[in-house]
Amino acid sequence: MPPPILTLLTDFGSSDAYVGIMKGVILGICPEARLVDLTHEVPPQNVTVGALLLRSAVSFFPPGAIHLAVVDPGVGSERAAVLVETERGWLVGPDNGLLFPAASALGIRRVREIANPAYRLAHVSQTFHGRDLFAPAAAHLAAGSEPVSFGPERSSVKQVELPHVRRSEKELEGEVIHVDHFGNLVTNVVAADLVAFPRSALSVSIRRCSTIPVLSTYAQAPHGALVAVIDSWGHLEVAVRDGSAAARTGGKIGTRVIVAAE
Amino acid sequence: MPPPILTLLTDFGSSDAYVGIMKGVILGICPEARLVDLTHEVPPQNVTVGALLLRSAVSFFPPGAIHLAVVDPGVGSERAAVLVETERGWLVGPDNGLLFPAASALGIRRVREIANPAYRLAHVSQTFHGRDLFAPAAAHLAAGSEPVSFGPERSSVKQVELPHVRRSEKELEGEVIHVDHFGNLVTNVVAADLVAFPRSALSVSIRRCSTIPVLSTYAQAPHGALVAVIDSWGHLEVAVRDGSAAARTGGKIGTRVIVAAE
Amino acid sequence: MPPPILTLLTDFGSSDAYVGIMKGVILGICPEARLVDLTHEVPPQNVTVGALLLRSAVSFFPPGAIHLAVVDPGVGSERAAVLVETERGWLVGPDNGLLFPAASALGIRRVREIANPAYRLAHVSQTFHGRDLFAPAAAHLAAGSEPVSFGPERSSVKQVELPHVRRSEKELEGEVIHVDHFGNLVTNVVAADLVAFPRSALSVSIRRCSTIPVLSTYAQAPHGALVAVIDSWGHLEVAVRDGSAAARTGGKIGTRVIVAAE
Repeated sequence: MPPPILTLLTDFGSSDAYVGIMKGVILGICPEARLVDLTHEVPPQNVTVGALLLRSAVSFFPPGAIHLAVVDPGVGSERAAVLVETERGWLVGPDNGLLFPAASALGIRRVREIANPAYRLAHVSQTFHGRDLFAPAAAHLAAGSEPVSFGPERSSVKQVELPHVRRSEKELEGEVIHVDHFGNLVTNVVAADLVAFPRSALSVSIRRCSTIPVLSTYAQAPHGALVAVIDSWGHLEVAVRDGSAAARTGGKIGTRVIVAAE
Repeated sequence: MPPPILTLLTDFGSSDAYVGIMKGVILGICPEARLVDLTHEVPPQNVTVGALLLRSAVSFFPPGAIHLAVVDPGVGSERAAVLVETERGWLVGPDNGLLFPAASALGIRRVREIANPAYRLAHVSQTFHGRDLFAPAAAHLAAGSEPVSFGPERSSVKQVELPHVRRSEKELEGEVIHVDHFGNLVTNVVAADLVAFPRSALSVSIRRCSTIPVLSTYAQAPHGALVAVIDSWGHLEVAVRDGSAAARTGGKIGTRVIVAAE
Repeated sequence: MPPPILTLLTDFGSSDAYVGIMKGVILGICPEARLVDLTHEVPPQNVTVGALLLRSAVSFFPPGAIHLAVVDPGVGSERAAVLVETERGWLVGPDNGLLFPAASALGIRRVREIANPAYRLAHVSQTFHGRDLFAPAAAHLAAGSEPVSFGPERSSVKQVELPHVRRSEKELEGEVIHVDHFGNLVTNVVAADLVAFPRSALSVSIRRCSTIPVLSTYAQAPHGALVAVIDSWGHLEVAVRDGSAAARTGGKIGTRVIVAAE
């Protein structure tokens, strides 16, 4: 049996040792765990972006993987810590919406509160539940502890709300929800929003840039041109071929994007 | 027996392949080592911050872990390379203060110079001892070489000096020694400095911001408010609930912080 | 037999989950692979810098390592995907010049197109061949698939063109091709370009800074002084002892550098 895979996604950044510390705790409990970083550069406290990044990744891992996610503006408050059992693996984190899109994508089976004090560090701080509570819980699960031993069942996991896409007969109005490393602008408009329209009839506008064509791949656009594609998240994304759409358009999280049909 | 854990902390950043190269060297000598990054974003040549980050992490690793740390402004000069044996594991790095706080936290048993040429690459450059000297030494230790074979004992490991906290009857004067990824301002004031005062009577001032309360957790502060807490390092830290204290106050490394009792 | 080592080098950055996703795909195919990040901070679409960083690292890995590299401005176009067999390991990536310097350094034996559809994900997107094509191919190789099964042989791997060094009798004119994490300015001038000149007679100019001496090591320069050295890449590099040459000179990728003999 291959060793258990345990992924980590946080907003802890890489300039401190916070993530390394969590890994030390995990390896103390489950020395054979295979640790894989998803990202630790979620914008601080941005549960929505964290939730979308987590969802983008989980289905590419083998069944049985454990996904530990901590973007936790409510640390120290009453939000619950949860373990979500899915068709293809487990999710561990705060119940603040962060886990919902990934859990839905993997198929939710059961949600449990993480309440068993045996699965925590002896001293739980008020500020670093990633280290004291979530890392040990995920590690105990990786080491073979039964999900039933973690705590009582809960009826559901908290949902995260994406900004709403507004529709009219010939137009969709969405917004930028994430700017990736390349300056690509990911919007809340998903492929399903566009099926009513023939793709060749669509054009996208953002700030002062309009009539941006919707193509199948960046490479169909000339070097340096603005282009919109359905990206690997299944979302409409505004990009510049071999460049940065964020730099070109000034678009950032929250910027309005219009998709118009002919 | 679980495979040996080997952590890495440097100021090499992530935009070059320097850290990957060290890992290649290590895996060539000890293929079963479990490699864990603490951080590689120590401010360039900042031994003090590197030392504090290293100390913040090491006690969360299982006994027997090997901690390789390289922040080495004196590379190519006469500073020694050392192996520190502690109650809970080993530290490998330059003897410039970087290892001292972590070694003290783990309990120093013995210090050795790394002098055995068998534990180096065949060619030792003048500019990259992380690759040529420290990585091979740590890897040979992980692969089971006896500490006694590394070199002669030394009487001590070099200390790093934190800036001094000044005290008067009703006031402490400290300074910011680290700004973390969230913009939290970590000071040189530690919990022990505050025991003489009732916590509810304390308030903190930094630049133009004063009467910042000292609370147990961020979450006790209203959204967006300045707050001081004892952080997971055991140091007094100035933070903004769901925000950045560095951005709010303009505080940075060296900024003066006053803790006043009633 | 130790588990196969698989390194990753991309321009994907660390703020998204792209690299984590590739690792999920790899571990689904080859659970025992040892994954090592070289860097994911290659400047976006900069094949030349990616190629030089890859070359700087590969020879420090044990024989048999698999190096997966994706800097791929041509994704979705007709550029081939290749597997390069070398004297010391394998390289997997787009045939756009990225692999050439590393392959040459390791000794090229054979080049194959990656054409076998069994070594891809079921659905290959137009935008993310790192996930859909290169990661699975590298993982299948790590899991023991025979190179011959990947696809037909090709006569060569595409070379990358460094900017040309111009020569006159007493002068070389090169340019900055990479700025590393410390602000060191790596140029396209290599050691071989300088053999015609006695080193002590050389001086370097960049922007308003001139008569920079060419020394053997940073440590021969006084603290804070500009110095030029042949770096661990074999390239002429302008540095500041314990400081940043990029900050001091304003030099960046493309900045002209003059090497003059007496």
